[in-house]
Amino acid sequence: MRYRLYYWPEIQGRGEFIRLALEYAGVDYVDVLRSRNGKFIEIKKFTPFAPPYLVAGKRVLSQTANILLYLGPRLRLAPRDEAGRLWAHQLQLTIADWLVEVHDTHHPIGSGLYYEEQRREARRRAADFRATRLAKYLDYFEGILRRSGGSWLLGKKLAYPDLSLFQMVAGLQYAFPRTMARLEKRYPRTLSLHQRVAGHPRLARYLASPRRIPFNMQGIFRHYPELDQIRINSKKT
Amino acid sequence: MRYRLYYWPEIQGRGEFIRLALEYAGVDYVDVLRSRNGKFIEIKKFTPFAPPYLVAGKRVLSQTANILLYLGPRLRLAPRDEAGRLWAHQLQLTIADWLVEVHDTHHPIGSGLYYEEQRREARRRAADFRATRLAKYLDYFEGILRRSGGSWLLGKKLAYPDLSLFQMVAGLQYAFPRTMARLEKRYPRTLSLHQRVAGHPRLARYLASPRRIPFNMQGIFRHYPELDQIRINSKKT
Repeated sequence: MRYRLYYWPEIQGRGEFIRLALEYAGVDYVDVLRSRNGKFIEIKKFTPFAPPYLVAGKRVLSQTANILLYLGPRLRLAPRDEAGRLWAHQLQLTIADWLVEVHDTHHPIGSGLYYEEQRREARRRAADFRATRLAKYLDYFEGILRRSGGSWLLGKKLAYPDLSLFQMVAGLQYAFPRTMARLEKRYPRTLSLHQRVAGHPRLARYLASPRRIPFNMQGIFRHYPELDQIRINSKKT
Repeated sequence: MRYRLYYWPEIQGRGEFIRLALEYAGVDYVDVLRSRNGKFIEIKKFTPFAPPYLVAGKRVLSQTANILLYLGPRLRLAPRDEAGRLWAHQLQLTIADWLVEVHDTHHPIGSGLYYEEQRREARRRAADFRATRLAKYLDYFEGILRRSGGSWLLGKKLAYPDLSLFQMVAGLQYAFPRTMARLEKRYPRTLSLHQRVAGHPRLARYLASPRRIPFNMQGIFRHYPELDQIRINSKKT
């Protein structure tokens, strides 16, 4: 069976978390909207709220983490037992939360508004993200790696949340290079994971190929230098 | 086995989505921090990022949607087949996205800052939420109900996302009474679902009991009258 991924063709976005799993696994898939004449399809009963969606035979799945929950065991990127699958999924959901917070650094008021219409608010939100939230997430995943009993989040074997954590680090390095350069030395395990994923032969080929859309200013990770500079001391509750 | 739920004892918050499932199913559980001497426990390897977390025998689960994914079939609140379970979970993840947007109407800059420190931004974000996002979510769930083949989201049988949709409506009516009063007539199926859940004998008893924490100004759903009034016409991209 050939998986069919539907996602915006101009950005990595949420679709990239699915692409990375499919590419790492080396399975055959079509990135439909990047192929000739590819269009978003109408789906009746299972109408997804928003892309990405994955068509797998008669199945239509949506919500990034849900798609990975489905793909995980099929791509051998998740444990077979229920406890292991739920644990992988739990990590993925925390990455999903983190990703929303990254998005909201440049769109704190509304995703339908231009960045320029919410730049002032973006500066405040990004400052709070850099001062408090970013380290909270990095601390969390570094701690998981420290205790996993291996060099991957789930232990000795790579699973799909490792690919997603790679993507978070890659995106954050693009969006917040100054902040990340300052923080990175505190997170050796996370950075090592990022490098090991990037260096995996199949992933390295993908990342160097035209199938990997470059980071850009339409995606979730965006580099606005003004969001990577100002330091605001925020009072905490 | 007796489930143990760990969540902030003063608010409904995310924990309420778990409480509703446990209460509807009529199973025995302990709401640990609301019981005498209940404290957050230390969890080693499976450290959750944030509450709620559920202890079920040796299992420790976190992430609201992940907990419901686990509980669903066990409480007979989800289909048995994989396709049905993934569909229920997909709906739950969309509710989780919606809930984050509700939270961010009053905390658009940082969850560690007081509302009063981000009131100006909150007015803009709430206006955008009321003008664009709220109807998008309500349209979506009303459409699912229209096509489900029954009076519940998954068809003829209530499943846990129905309880969560009830909670969304209840919370939105508390937080945005003016906006909801204006919108509600467009969503008869969603409002009917809300009433049917509220009228279910076991749920009605729960909602009238001291176990149901009232909505309040520390929770995710908060009623700031100024966030329920101003109408801003926002340009869309």
